[in-house]
Amino acid sequence: MALITPEQYEQSLKNRKSPRIFMNGKKVQDIFDNPNTRTAIEANKASYRWALDPEHQDLMTGLSPLTNDRVNRYVYVSRSREDLVKKALSATFTAENLGTCIYRCPGLDAFHALASTTWEMDKNLGTEYHDRFIKYLKSVQEKDLAVAGALTEPRGDRKKRAIDWPDPYLSVKMVEKKSDGIVVRGAKINISGAYVGNEIVVLPQSAKRKDEGDYALSFAVPADMEGITYICQYSPYSAEREVAEDIYELGNPVFGQRETSMVVFDNVFIPWERVFHCGETDYSIKLVERFAKTHRMTCGGTCKVGFMNLLIGACKLLQEYKGLDKAQHINDELMEMVVLRETARACGLAAGNLGQEEPVGSGVFLPDELMGNVSKLNICNAFWRVMALAGDIGGGLVVTLPSLRELKNPETKKYIEEFLGFGSNASAEDIMKVTKLLQNWTAGQHGVGTWHGAGPVMAQKIMLQRVIDYEHEKKLVKHTLGILKK
Amino acid sequence: MALITPEQYEQSLKNRKSPRIFMNGKKVQDIFDNPNTRTAIEANKASYRWALDPEHQDLMTGLSPLTNDRVNRYVYVSRSREDLVKKALSATFTAENLGTCIYRCPGLDAFHALASTTWEMDKNLGTEYHDRFIKYLKSVQEKDLAVAGALTEPRGDRKKRAIDWPDPYLSVKMVEKKSDGIVVRGAKINISGAYVGNEIVVLPQSAKRKDEGDYALSFAVPADMEGITYICQYSPYSAEREVAEDIYELGNPVFGQRETSMVVFDNVFIPWERVFHCGETDYSIKLVERFAKTHRMTCGGTCKVGFMNLLIGACKLLQEYKGLDKAQHINDELMEMVVLRETARACGLAAGNLGQEEPVGSGVFLPDELMGNVSKLNICNAFWRVMALAGDIGGGLVVTLPSLRELKNPETKKYIEEFLGFGSNASAEDIMKVTKLLQNWTAGQHGVGTWHGAGPVMAQKIMLQRVIDYEHEKKLVKHTLGILKK
Amino acid sequence: MALITPEQYEQSLKNRKSPRIFMNGKKVQDIFDNPNTRTAIEANKASYRWALDPEHQDLMTGLSPLTNDRVNRYVYVSRSREDLVKKALSATFTAENLGTCIYRCPGLDAFHALASTTWEMDKNLGTEYHDRFIKYLKSVQEKDLAVAGALTEPRGDRKKRAIDWPDPYLSVKMVEKKSDGIVVRGAKINISGAYVGNEIVVLPQSAKRKDEGDYALSFAVPADMEGITYICQYSPYSAEREVAEDIYELGNPVFGQRETSMVVFDNVFIPWERVFHCGETDYSIKLVERFAKTHRMTCGGTCKVGFMNLLIGACKLLQEYKGLDKAQHINDELMEMVVLRETARACGLAAGNLGQEEPVGSGVFLPDELMGNVSKLNICNAFWRVMALAGDIGGGLVVTLPSLRELKNPETKKYIEEFLGFGSNASAEDIMKVTKLLQNWTAGQHGVGTWHGAGPVMAQKIMLQRVIDYEHEKKLVKHTLGILKK
Amino acid sequence: MALITPEQYEQSLKNRKSPRIFMNGKKVQDIFDNPNTRTAIEANKASYRWALDPEHQDLMTGLSPLTNDRVNRYVYVSRSREDLVKKALSATFTAENLGTCIYRCPGLDAFHALASTTWEMDKNLGTEYHDRFIKYLKSVQEKDLAVAGALTEPRGDRKKRAIDWPDPYLSVKMVEKKSDGIVVRGAKINISGAYVGNEIVVLPQSAKRKDEGDYALSFAVPADMEGITYICQYSPYSAEREVAEDIYELGNPVFGQRETSMVVFDNVFIPWERVFHCGETDYSIKLVERFAKTHRMTCGGTCKVGFMNLLIGACKLLQEYKGLDKAQHINDELMEMVVLRETARACGLAAGNLGQEEPVGSGVFLPDELMGNVSKLNICNAFWRVMALAGDIGGGLVVTLPSLRELKNPETKKYIEEFLGFGSNASAEDIMKVTKLLQNWTAGQHGVGTWHGAGPVMAQKIMLQRVIDYEHEKKLVKHTLGILKK
Repeated sequence: MALITPEQYEQSLKNRKSPRIFMNGKKVQDIFDNPNTRTAIEANKASYRWALDPEHQDLMTGLSPLTNDRVNRYVYVSRSREDLVKKALSATFTAENLGTCIYRCPGLDAFHALASTTWEMDKNLGTEYHDRFIKYLKSVQEKDLAVAGALTEPRGDRKKRAIDWPDPYLSVKMVEKKSDGIVVRGAKINISGAYVGNEIVVLPQSAKRKDEGDYALSFAVPADMEGITYICQYSPYSAEREVAEDIYELGNPVFGQRETSMVVFDNVFIPWERVFHCGETDYSIKLVERFAKTHRMTCGGTCKVGFMNLLIGACKLLQEYKGLDKAQHINDELMEMVVLRETARACGLAAGNLGQEEPVGSGVFLPDELMGNVSKLNICNAFWRVMALAGDIGGGLVVTLPSLRELKNPETKKYIEEFLGFGSNASAEDIMKVTKLLQNWTAGQHGVGTWHGAGPVMAQKIMLQRVIDYEHEKKLVKHTLGILKK
Repeated sequence: MALITPEQYEQSLKNRKSPRIFMNGKKVQDIFDNPNTRTAIEANKASYRWALDPEHQDLMTGLSPLTNDRVNRYVYVSRSREDLVKKALSATFTAENLGTCIYRCPGLDAFHALASTTWEMDKNLGTEYHDRFIKYLKSVQEKDLAVAGALTEPRGDRKKRAIDWPDPYLSVKMVEKKSDGIVVRGAKINISGAYVGNEIVVLPQSAKRKDEGDYALSFAVPADMEGITYICQYSPYSAEREVAEDIYELGNPVFGQRETSMVVFDNVFIPWERVFHCGETDYSIKLVERFAKTHRMTCGGTCKVGFMNLLIGACKLLQEYKGLDKAQHINDELMEMVVLRETARACGLAAGNLGQEEPVGSGVFLPDELMGNVSKLNICNAFWRVMALAGDIGGGLVVTLPSLRELKNPETKKYIEEFLGFGSNASAEDIMKVTKLLQNWTAGQHGVGTWHGAGPVMAQKIMLQRVIDYEHEKKLVKHTLGILKK
Repeated sequence: MALITPEQYEQSLKNRKSPRIFMNGKKVQDIFDNPNTRTAIEANKASYRWALDPEHQDLMTGLSPLTNDRVNRYVYVSRSREDLVKKALSATFTAENLGTCIYRCPGLDAFHALASTTWEMDKNLGTEYHDRFIKYLKSVQEKDLAVAGALTEPRGDRKKRAIDWPDPYLSVKMVEKKSDGIVVRGAKINISGAYVGNEIVVLPQSAKRKDEGDYALSFAVPADMEGITYICQYSPYSAEREVAEDIYELGNPVFGQRETSMVVFDNVFIPWERVFHCGETDYSIKLVERFAKTHRMTCGGTCKVGFMNLLIGACKLLQEYKGLDKAQHINDELMEMVVLRETARACGLAAGNLGQEEPVGSGVFLPDELMGNVSKLNICNAFWRVMALAGDIGGGLVVTLPSLRELKNPETKKYIEEFLGFGSNASAEDIMKVTKLLQNWTAGQHGVGTWHGAGPVMAQKIMLQRVIDYEHEKKLVKHTLGILKK
Repeated sequence: MALITPEQYEQSLKNRKSPRIFMNGKKVQDIFDNPNTRTAIEANKASYRWALDPEHQDLMTGLSPLTNDRVNRYVYVSRSREDLVKKALSATFTAENLGTCIYRCPGLDAFHALASTTWEMDKNLGTEYHDRFIKYLKSVQEKDLAVAGALTEPRGDRKKRAIDWPDPYLSVKMVEKKSDGIVVRGAKINISGAYVGNEIVVLPQSAKRKDEGDYALSFAVPADMEGITYICQYSPYSAEREVAEDIYELGNPVFGQRETSMVVFDNVFIPWERVFHCGETDYSIKLVERFAKTHRMTCGGTCKVGFMNLLIGACKLLQEYKGLDKAQHINDELMEMVVLRETARACGLAAGNLGQEEPVGSGVFLPDELMGNVSKLNICNAFWRVMALAGDIGGGLVVTLPSLRELKNPETKKYIEEFLGFGSNASAEDIMKVTKLLQNWTAGQHGVGTWHGAGPVMAQKIMLQRVIDYEHEKKLVKHTLGILKK
């Protein structure tokens, strides 16, 4: 069966050439040992564990027609509405169990966009991308590879075309076309856990004009390919994990923050069998749009349902720990969080339930365009609101919390236990841990991260404006007023 | 086939005894002639027309196991998730085509609550309500009756029990139990179009305590029954329609406002075969809750999708009429309305898609409790926001509009045509009509009406608080923090 | 003293030629008798009464340097921050006592814009407008005239210049310049109570370009001038008042709705001594901006404080009438309304307290530009929210209320008294009246009216974008980061 | 003159006994050297610098009647509305220049509460607290001491009285009353920079009942007093500063985060001349309320105006750096931030402008109760919204930013400069620094901190509910409806 173990996945990373990774001005010598990169490996490992776990296998795998076997959900392209709904539900499950990204998710959504669009290009243009892509996908499924997806680019002056930028590499560009493949240069930024993938699949970030053919690119590349450099994020949370003596001092002990990096492609060679889009400028936007709605259903929608569950659970626990069960304003806030969560859930499920085969005949199912985008757009605001509410329930300690290490310091332990135990039945340690989790969620990176993950509000608005058609609504009004007879 | 024509429905109302109806201090002599009550008849007639229309029959009818025949959607109790989804979709269709209530909707939702709860009472208590109810429902289906539903009551001091109120009739109460039936007294308020139903089905409004058995009542009664008095609403919109010379001067020409009345039961006799709940106080709340979530999915949720479509369509038309197609702030507002509409749609569909048989074995499918309530709660705020946005696009004329009758006045016609035509390609008449529709929606009764229809926010909050369980979320947090080992 | 009585004001209207006024397709023969136009007269009369009332005189009058006497606040141009604060407070007082517009308010704000801008034109251009205007203002003060202000115009395609519109009269235009004055044609729309003013003062609505000199106009004109036609608004509320037998059946018995009309100028002659701006295109926008911020402080800001007080008071009364004093969710809603009201109050007061002489040397004080606009922008959203909250507290009866006339119908009176008295100590009549007031405020024209009065959100945004300067903020950041040394 | 230099202040801290301070499980050996505690010293030093700076002296000092000399604004009790307005303005100035707390602020607000309430106690009860307090205040002014304020306590089960808690020290309690003073035990939590004050002034956190006299306490204590232990907060931001090689890698280089600690009083002796409230339970709530409204005007209101200026400035800079000047959605977001800032400013100013002497005769001016609380309540939500908007403009890099240290790493420098320079005229370094500042503000502690600082929403609601009186509003409604004759 094409399902490998977590350990096999970790070993596959160890077997490769060591990628060139930098963090905080220094080279990362060992991603297995570095406390921050380690979290991303742990997150991906969980996806392998669940696929093998009978309790979760139905949700976390799919039956591939390419391999005639169960493959991990994260390498399975949806072929029905039921598949899309399972995809939506798996995002919630993953998110609430990790409290961070599953790093195989953007790659999967790129696969959806490619399966659909390579089919369409071949049909309309007579290219051979779909066969190539399917062959590649089959091999990914057979080896159960972890694949990262990469879209976002620095980009230069938005008022000018890419070819008019002083530096042409602010989007990833083909610098040479050779008989056996292409050479690319440029950078992708904000990329989730690229270096813990076996592979990276690259899509364009935006529509391309006719004369921007060298930017109309999609390809797959091994994560340890020569010419690739990873420059990691470094935040207060990175520092905190570096200096922690015990991960259980932290707000998300095992899986940490969403670890991203800038991925620099400095003249990287891509053989033709790994190139899935090259110069067909009309189709770049299709790749983008199809990725976007697929990603927005989950990363923008149902994944945040899982995160909200963690916030809600922590608030409920603190309420109980502090004996505030009857405080109506807290119950009201919890309810408001639940309403926002259910709304997110509804939009994500609707995106799946209203999904369709696209293009007809391709066998690929994609979420409803409107709902996929609406899911994400709602979440942008909802998540900030949930954070504000959770921060209220968490109390001032969410920002003023002393270190959990004080519990090991005999000079402060007794004071901490007395005064942060609040005279309740709960221990100061549990209260502090739950507060620490709320610090992670409400006094850290998740507001901005949730907003920009899968694209900020403006990105959804641009899609919506393109998609919405008001003919039905206008006709209704004319009928109602007798301007138009039925 | 058990589907009658609109004309047959109207004739059925003419055949009955004339009900006792008052409006604006005077008796309504003829509901077919009174311009306000007429609108409610027209709305119900549409439901008969659609059921016979091949284009809409799939949505607007269901195949009844009682009659083995197609019956109108408004007398069909859902038996699957697919049925619930169709129910949700039919509410949108109805609402966007009427721009007002379909008056058979609360009756249908009462049927859902009764089908489920009478089955449960019989199973648990050995009563015979379910058989009675099914017999009654079958006859309703066979005759294709229009049935109104009635729940809301004046109620007295909420801090006291009903039996301690000085006036015991502020909830509908059984005043006598006889061998052949019961006698009831009290009033239902805010009841949509009761007098244009052939029948009224009555449910309790709230939970009952053990000693409130005389209030634990559900029954069906012909709308022309002796002892019933209808006192109609009378609003500025009622007056406007009364003095209109041409209904096309009005904002919703044919179907008007939601017409409600206070329905007074002054010692009305109900024979036992029409009594479905009488004294089993534990089950009153079940009737209420099951009605609530069923009604909130549609009246609270998907029905407002249809209304929003009218607002959106009118705004888009005005934008085009006034040549403001490129005005980005208007496009942004339209988009915001669409996002709110899609969110409402998603919640309504999720309520159906996540619905279940309740109780198991009953064959009755009801919407998901959480989603049914969330649908409505979201709408309360969303609809006001859509109104505000539409009012912005509509412009000051939404409130300052001269009468469309000016177009027939030679002294003002030319000025109106010149200055309200805005030099555009559209006629002043069309601009004024669409503005009048927006007046109806944004400067009238729909904000408060939408909020309170199917219960105000507080009613949803009460249900939610009862339903929500935080165990899953708490466990997730404990696992994450290592407080609880997986 | 230059303060006349309400009766003298009414008589002054009777003394003039009867203006040409139309409503609902018919000529208004007598504005004193027509129930709708009557309300506007009553509102203006109140302003005369207050000025003579020792209790209110300090707030409702000012000491004019032109007449060396107390003049009505509504003809007094502010000369200090204290004056501006009094102006702000008088708007609240007026609004909460009328529950509708005081129709002398836009005229007053036009006077502020003219006093400031004519001074500046004369100074910079050597024109004689300021002297003319001051002479005119002095005469207005001496006669204590009611003066309406008129800005809003139909306008044609916004993407084209006025001179390129097919119909050049969609803004008010000078059609002839004569030795003794000018002739104008066009229309002003949405004009509050113009026909109950003795005079109308006209300003341009928007910036003018160099070649739009014929549109760069400001002048004063007697309301009964030949060539002027008024076409009144006609809404459901107009109809309701027409058919009412007793004004105390209505939601705002005496003062009614804000009564507006379209004011058509069909070749109206304006003698030079009444022309205050004619062709100086650079100054049109100054008139607009100075009017806007002055009007937005009051009409947009503190006036709505008064309206909110009525909504809040009605909700509190209903809460008490229904015995819901302890209902926390109602107390929370009341508090939210109070917070929105206080915020509006704060912004209005700040606009006054931060006001300044503009231009320096003119002696004219105008509100702070940012705060004047912020006041209004906040109100647009706040008022809808207050309506939603008040509609919740008002209950479904806000839309389903039977006519108060039922209390005079022996067949329904007893039912109404029983079931709408809610078993409380309050009478059904009082409950219905307060509910009717809430109907007026939450199920009528006030959401859209408040939004568009003094200009919709977009108008404030345009002003704000023009005014805001980010240099201070940018410098702070550079200092903080050491990019710029302090 | 009673104004010392920053260096004198720092020396005064060095002269005292070393306080017992812990952070992250270890003793802080040297607060001048520890990078986190250092920031608090720098912030306080700035307050001394400004007071001596002729440019800022008018705002940052006041003329004390006790010393007949200029004293620092932070030890000056307001004696007029003008003073209150200056106090409000100084909070903005301080906040925008520090980007963090000025740690002398809660102490100042405690002085306002004490000046007012000790006067009232002496007048009503014949105590001698006011003289004591004035003598203490005079000495503080003469020595220009930095004084921290401390209110918040752990508190036990809120449903029980303090005297019924198993651990009686969850509020600060008098454990012994001696001839020369009192001994107290308990802890204050979330206390801003207590250890960088020369003194701490303690108020009760909440109302006290008759039998809670031992908790009705206010006193001043030297920060290095025996028996006091400080347990500092430790957050990701603390860790980041610890490991930073250069403070200019950080988001707020010099002044950092708001540094707080739990202050434990373990049997601390307070001589009578430093005790200002001891057992007069009726007056505890007055101290709390007067502190609250004073603190909420500034910490809750105008201080956040300053913080918002930093967010706004950073967003504007990034917009310009990235060449997005014309992007309308960014301009709209900037404008929304400005509107929220102006609203905060208006409320703060109104709180001052409407302030009054309280109690009459005391000579102490306090902000308006309603406005003081409304200021803070609005900010709770507004600040989260400003964060969300700024996070949008900041972009994904706000969370994914590599370390600024990469600019010193030859292997990554060129990539960073190329790809994070965005081909713009700005340097990657400046873009990264401004982004880092936005990380500090939008992906850190400020949402929760701002919400809870000066008390969370619920605290304001409790005050508002106590203060609001609806009589005026109810009377207006009755007059309008003719229920009550004027």
